[in-house]
Amino acid sequence: MTSNSKYDRDMHRNAANYVPLSPLSFLRRTADVFPTRTAVVDGDTRRTWADTYRRCRQLASALSQRGIGTGDTVAVMAPNTAVLLEAHFGVPMCGAVLNALNTRLDADAIAFILEHGEAEVLICDHEYAPIVKTAVTKLSHPILIVDADDGLATDVEHIGELDYEQLLEEGGADYEWSLPGDEWDAISLNYTSGTTGNPKGVVYHHRGAYLGAIGNVVTWHMPQQPVYLWTLPMFHCNGWCFPWAVTAIAGTHICLRKVEPEAIFDAIEANGVTHLCGAPIVMNMMAEYARAKDIRLSKPVHMMTAGSAPPSAVLRRMEEIGFDVTHTYGLTEVYGPTSICDWHEEWNHLAADERAAMKARQGVRYEVQEEFTVVNPETLEPVPHDGETMGELVFRGNAVMKGYLKNPDTSAECFEGGYFRTGDLGVVHADKYVEIRDRSKDIIISGGENISSIEVEDALYQHPSVSEAAVVARPDAKWGESPCAFVTLRADTTASEEEIIEHCQSRLARFKCPRTIVFTELPKTSTGKIQKFLLREQACNL
Amino acid sequence: MTSNSKYDRDMHRNAANYVPLSPLSFLRRTADVFPTRTAVVDGDTRRTWADTYRRCRQLASALSQRGIGTGDTVAVMAPNTAVLLEAHFGVPMCGAVLNALNTRLDADAIAFILEHGEAEVLICDHEYAPIVKTAVTKLSHPILIVDADDGLATDVEHIGELDYEQLLEEGGADYEWSLPGDEWDAISLNYTSGTTGNPKGVVYHHRGAYLGAIGNVVTWHMPQQPVYLWTLPMFHCNGWCFPWAVTAIAGTHICLRKVEPEAIFDAIEANGVTHLCGAPIVMNMMAEYARAKDIRLSKPVHMMTAGSAPPSAVLRRMEEIGFDVTHTYGLTEVYGPTSICDWHEEWNHLAADERAAMKARQGVRYEVQEEFTVVNPETLEPVPHDGETMGELVFRGNAVMKGYLKNPDTSAECFEGGYFRTGDLGVVHADKYVEIRDRSKDIIISGGENISSIEVEDALYQHPSVSEAAVVARPDAKWGESPCAFVTLRADTTASEEEIIEHCQSRLARFKCPRTIVFTELPKTSTGKIQKFLLREQACNL
Repeated sequence: MTSNSKYDRDMHRNAANYVPLSPLSFLRRTADVFPTRTAVVDGDTRRTWADTYRRCRQLASALSQRGIGTGDTVAVMAPNTAVLLEAHFGVPMCGAVLNALNTRLDADAIAFILEHGEAEVLICDHEYAPIVKTAVTKLSHPILIVDADDGLATDVEHIGELDYEQLLEEGGADYEWSLPGDEWDAISLNYTSGTTGNPKGVVYHHRGAYLGAIGNVVTWHMPQQPVYLWTLPMFHCNGWCFPWAVTAIAGTHICLRKVEPEAIFDAIEANGVTHLCGAPIVMNMMAEYARAKDIRLSKPVHMMTAGSAPPSAVLRRMEEIGFDVTHTYGLTEVYGPTSICDWHEEWNHLAADERAAMKARQGVRYEVQEEFTVVNPETLEPVPHDGETMGELVFRGNAVMKGYLKNPDTSAECFEGGYFRTGDLGVVHADKYVEIRDRSKDIIISGGENISSIEVEDALYQHPSVSEAAVVARPDAKWGESPCAFVTLRADTTASEEEIIEHCQSRLARFKCPRTIVFTELPKTSTGKIQKFLLREQACNL
Repeated sequence: MTSNSKYDRDMHRNAANYVPLSPLSFLRRTADVFPTRTAVVDGDTRRTWADTYRRCRQLASALSQRGIGTGDTVAVMAPNTAVLLEAHFGVPMCGAVLNALNTRLDADAIAFILEHGEAEVLICDHEYAPIVKTAVTKLSHPILIVDADDGLATDVEHIGELDYEQLLEEGGADYEWSLPGDEWDAISLNYTSGTTGNPKGVVYHHRGAYLGAIGNVVTWHMPQQPVYLWTLPMFHCNGWCFPWAVTAIAGTHICLRKVEPEAIFDAIEANGVTHLCGAPIVMNMMAEYARAKDIRLSKPVHMMTAGSAPPSAVLRRMEEIGFDVTHTYGLTEVYGPTSICDWHEEWNHLAADERAAMKARQGVRYEVQEEFTVVNPETLEPVPHDGETMGELVFRGNAVMKGYLKNPDTSAECFEGGYFRTGDLGVVHADKYVEIRDRSKDIIISGGENISSIEVEDALYQHPSVSEAAVVARPDAKWGESPCAFVTLRADTTASEEEIIEHCQSRLARFKCPRTIVFTELPKTSTGKIQKFLLREQACNL
């Protein structure tokens, strides 16, 4: 812009040719173009885009009248309801930052987040009133609590100053909201689940949210007006940007209070669902249920999965039920998934197992992301594309967070070398597709050899009796560490420790096979990730 | 960025989280992910994405070695060939600006553009060697001419210092190109055809080109890997950003040297074409040919049309042949079409004529555009959404040019009031869809009443013998102006002036009916627009 080139002279940005990128623009367009189309289905409530836009403007207006604006934080504690969807637009429309809270956290963790994020308003679904009531007693600053009660439950405790619908009534339906002053302005704050230490507050900007949403549409080849089922928590990386993406293409959001397989299959049938997302553990739950009930989908449904590497056996089962599964990879810091195992037609001719193995790879960057590769963590040189040399997975591009809130050291550390450092370990194949081998902390080092816990889990999942499996390091006097497997068996099956180990030995190098098998239920995070740190503790005490 | 908010502190843009938006990123990704897929078919030549990327890098490298870089202009005079496609990437990859020349212009106009745009290199297809040879004699600065000869024609005159393939050989296939320093940097220069005065040089920036391309994918719901036929001139608004859009989704570009109906239908059949673009006049030519040859498509093909309002009769005929026509609207200044007649399912139940009338509207903004509406040209207030009140069509958003090159006054004028002023006149319907009524200069004022030339043309096209029609103002002693129609009849039909006028009277208010009918061939611009200024001259002299 300071250049003297003829191409810069007298050609500055102006009101006509430059507008900050923001997903808020999507809502206004969809409400303009498809006002009567169904925007959201939440229990018995159905609302159009005109209605939804009006309510979002009312929310923004009401918050603004109460003094909330740029740089302020509005927290929401809610399952996947219309309220949380509206907050994705209404909160930033008044300039504020949305902090969607992980509903599985305890009162202490919620209190930490509200304190650290300096939330001034908290909209709380009635389901979480008890925990929020405790959490707010620990805060050093005042907070306005708003009850969100959809009227479906009885015996609901009201802890707020007013109700969400009352708050909306305070606001004007014709509120003149504005785009952010700068597309680099914060739009949301998402705390990582943080298996160790305090959670970190990941800050998203409008530009990244816009591009992340567009990225889902383009990279997943979403058609116009999909019917999207909310199986993925909206509080998790802002639902991988799908509140904005589905809105951009005038789809319908189908809310879901409880992520349970019966409710999922019912909702798919009742609403003609075309798209949904979920962690592999959700897919596994769905696959197990469909097997038990002998369910086949009447027409194919697109499912995006990410969050951990999906066992190929689960991928295969989902295919059999009628799901077209797309495997993606990402982290909170990169707006959810922004790499995809982009599919090659010729892979359709592979045997089911090989196809699933191809699909289990983390793949290549989204169109909106600039780089996704694996580098030597010391030198930052790219590893050779040999499918063997391990390195750290890194991202670079516009769908990377601003940084961690009030945490400059950790921010600087994770951006070291001009990449976002994921902490995940993997390889690059000859076709440039990345495959994750492990989280750095999940890798098992036995007799000096690296063992990928994922590879061992993949072998376990191929056993017909295994419903879920997780492998961690167990301290070993001779080898340093040895693989220890935690396994859940299918309800109607049995298998002995020896049988499972033998099964692994038929598929894996001997040193990679688990030496211990524990039959148990697996502890999980709210997003369905298995909590390996708990299993590691357990393995240490065996 | 200068705010003291907690959301800005220590959260600056860095190499990991901020990358200039540029369509150049699309090429690198597609070459990485789908290296062996066919990128381009040009006559007997087929090239993969790996090949195409290599050639673009070589082009960038060779230009760079010859001293071409940021702020320099590289012109190309070529039909829709692989060379011009490669230039869309190779030229900006070395920092330079692509100036694709309108191949229908005469030597004087070409000379004016080369002089005004300060082109330092000109890549010239052999077909245009004679005209370019004359044009460059008029330049006051030296220019490197590169011959592009695909070897298919004989008796070709070489006017350049070297051949395009020789130029590529000078360049390194591993050239380390870089993204622009700023996404606001110029990527291309497109001269408007300019019916009066000298052409104006519209400057595009990388950000707009990126979003324009993404806009086509999202708003036209393009699937992954389309087969795109180049019926639209690539020199026209950079082919409406489709060189970049089709590349982003790893499609295949089918080149086409001559836009003739037989060649179009042959190419559709031979290559399994899924998408193409063209002005209504191209659709009309295709529809006439298909009618004569009784052609029906074996599977639906998506066609985008823009450039002037398509007569509903032509839309209906295209539907019958098997084209799924999407009607869009735009201008060079807004990166080609960035409004679309976004379709509502319920309109499928309308009668064919009503459906075509709905589709003939210019519609609503692309997702990537911020505003498209109609305002009072004096006050800039939006007109009421009554389908009657006329005003000026305006755009605002990121797919709007930087400005006109070396023309600050005209730039300032067209951006007056914070909108890009199109100079087109129209209305907004109750459903917020915009409909164009006329170019300001095309409106006919008869006895103080405005007559839309488009409305009269629409009536003419409904006559079974009319193949093409254009209506302009003719000076009239009594009424000031009266409508004068220029009509081309179908080869196998006849119709008298009286018969045509009677046909119009059965459909239009009497004052709107043409008083004069001239049977003739219509003069057209290179992009198939009817040159009304020539017809107006003719009408004056009748």
